[in-house]
Amino acid sequence: METREAIRTRRSVHDYTDEEVTRDEIRRIIDDIRWSPSSYNLQPWEFVVVDDQEGQEELREAAYGQEHVTDASAVVLVFGNLDRGAYAERVFRDQARKGYSSDERAEELIERMEDEQPEGNEEWAVGSSTIAATTFMYAAWDRGIATCPMGGWEADAVCETVGAPETWYPVLMMTVGYPDTDGTEWERERKIRRSTDGILSFGEVGGGE
Amino acid sequence: METREAIRTRRSVHDYTDEEVTRDEIRRIIDDIRWSPSSYNLQPWEFVVVDDQEGQEELREAAYGQEHVTDASAVVLVFGNLDRGAYAERVFRDQARKGYSSDERAEELIERMEDEQPEGNEEWAVGSSTIAATTFMYAAWDRGIATCPMGGWEADAVCETVGAPETWYPVLMMTVGYPDTDGTEWERERKIRRSTDGILSFGEVGGGE
Repeated sequence: METREAIRTRRSVHDYTDEEVTRDEIRRIIDDIRWSPSSYNLQPWEFVVVDDQEGQEELREAAYGQEHVTDASAVVLVFGNLDRGAYAERVFRDQARKGYSSDERAEELIERMEDEQPEGNEEWAVGSSTIAATTFMYAAWDRGIATCPMGGWEADAVCETVGAPETWYPVLMMTVGYPDTDGTEWERERKIRRSTDGILSFGEVGGGE
Repeated sequence: METREAIRTRRSVHDYTDEEVTRDEIRRIIDDIRWSPSSYNLQPWEFVVVDDQEGQEELREAAYGQEHVTDASAVVLVFGNLDRGAYAERVFRDQARKGYSSDERAEELIERMEDEQPEGNEEWAVGSSTIAATTFMYAAWDRGIATCPMGGWEADAVCETVGAPETWYPVLMMTVGYPDTDGTEWERERKIRRSTDGILSFGEVGGGE
C-alpha cells in the first residue's frame, strides 16, 4: 500500500474477524519497526504480545472490561525502557565504528547513559516508544491488519500480567486483528478531523482553531 | 512510495540541500497527519513551522547551537495541547451525530473534558502528539523530504520564540529539508538496530536482549 494511503485510510477498529494474526506476521511487523528513529539511537522500546485467551482476559480486566481486548486476535503492549544504559554500549560502539562519533565520545556517552536517570525520563520513554508504536500501526495496516490504540487501563495490572520489570514503563496497549467490516462501526462515516489551518501555523502561533 | 519502504528507508538527516520545502508541501503533509489516531479523537496536536532565518537562529540557540537547525529548510515544532476541552465540543457532537455515541454520552464527555486536567496530562500530550509527529516523518519521507527529530533543546526558549500559550506543552522539535546525500553522513552505513527477538516477546516478558 502507498504510504499516504496507509496514513489516510488507517482507522481504529474495535470489531475483528476470527482470522488469527499469526506470530510470524507480528514478527514481520516488528522487523519493520526496528528502523524507527530514537534519540541517540537508543531504541528504548519493548513489545510484549499477548495472544492467548487467559492473558487477554486478564488484560481485559485491567482495561475496565473493554470487549475488543478479548475479541481481538492479540493485544500488543508497548513499554519504554527507563534504563538508558540498557543498550548503550552496543549502540555507541556501533556509532564510533561507523564514523558517526569518536571512540572517546562513545565511551563518554556509554558512561553517561549508565549513570543517568534524568528528570523527565518517563516522558522520554513515552515519546520514544510512541514513535515505534505508531510505526507498528502503519506497518500492520499495510498488511491489512487493524489496530486500536487504547487509553484507559490499569498500569500495575498490565505490568503484572506479563511480568514487566520495574524499569519497563507501560506506554500503550493496542488490540490487533483483521477488521470485521460487515454491519459494524466500519460502516459509519469517519470521525471529524481538525482542519489543516487549525493545526498548523507558520513563524508563530496563530491560533489553534 | 510503499509504506514498508518508507518505514525501512527513512533515516534522520542532518545535512540538507539548499532546496526549499515550500509551505504548500508542509500543508500537504499536515493534511495527511490530520488522520492520525488519538484518544477520544481529541487530536491535541499543534504544529508551528519556523522557516525564516531569524526564527531558525533563535531556535538554534535554544537547541544548544545544533547546526542543522539553521541549515534545514524549516523547523517543525510539535506541541501537545494540555487543554482537553479545546476541541471537545466539536469532536463529541460529531461522534453522536455519526452514531458512535449517544447525545447524553457526548454531553457528559464534553463536560468532563472541560473540567479535567488529570494527573499524567503531560504524558498524554506527549504520547498523542508523538503519534502525529511520527506520521509527519513518514508523510514527509514519502515526498522525499527528510526529517530529524531532536532531543536537546530548552523548552522555555522554544515556547517564547513562537509565542506558545501556557497550555501548549512542547513535545518535539524536528528539522526538515531535502537530504544532501553527497559526501555527507548519508554515505555511512546505517546505525545498528536491535533484533526482532530482542524487542519482542509473546505472552510474557522474555528478556530485552
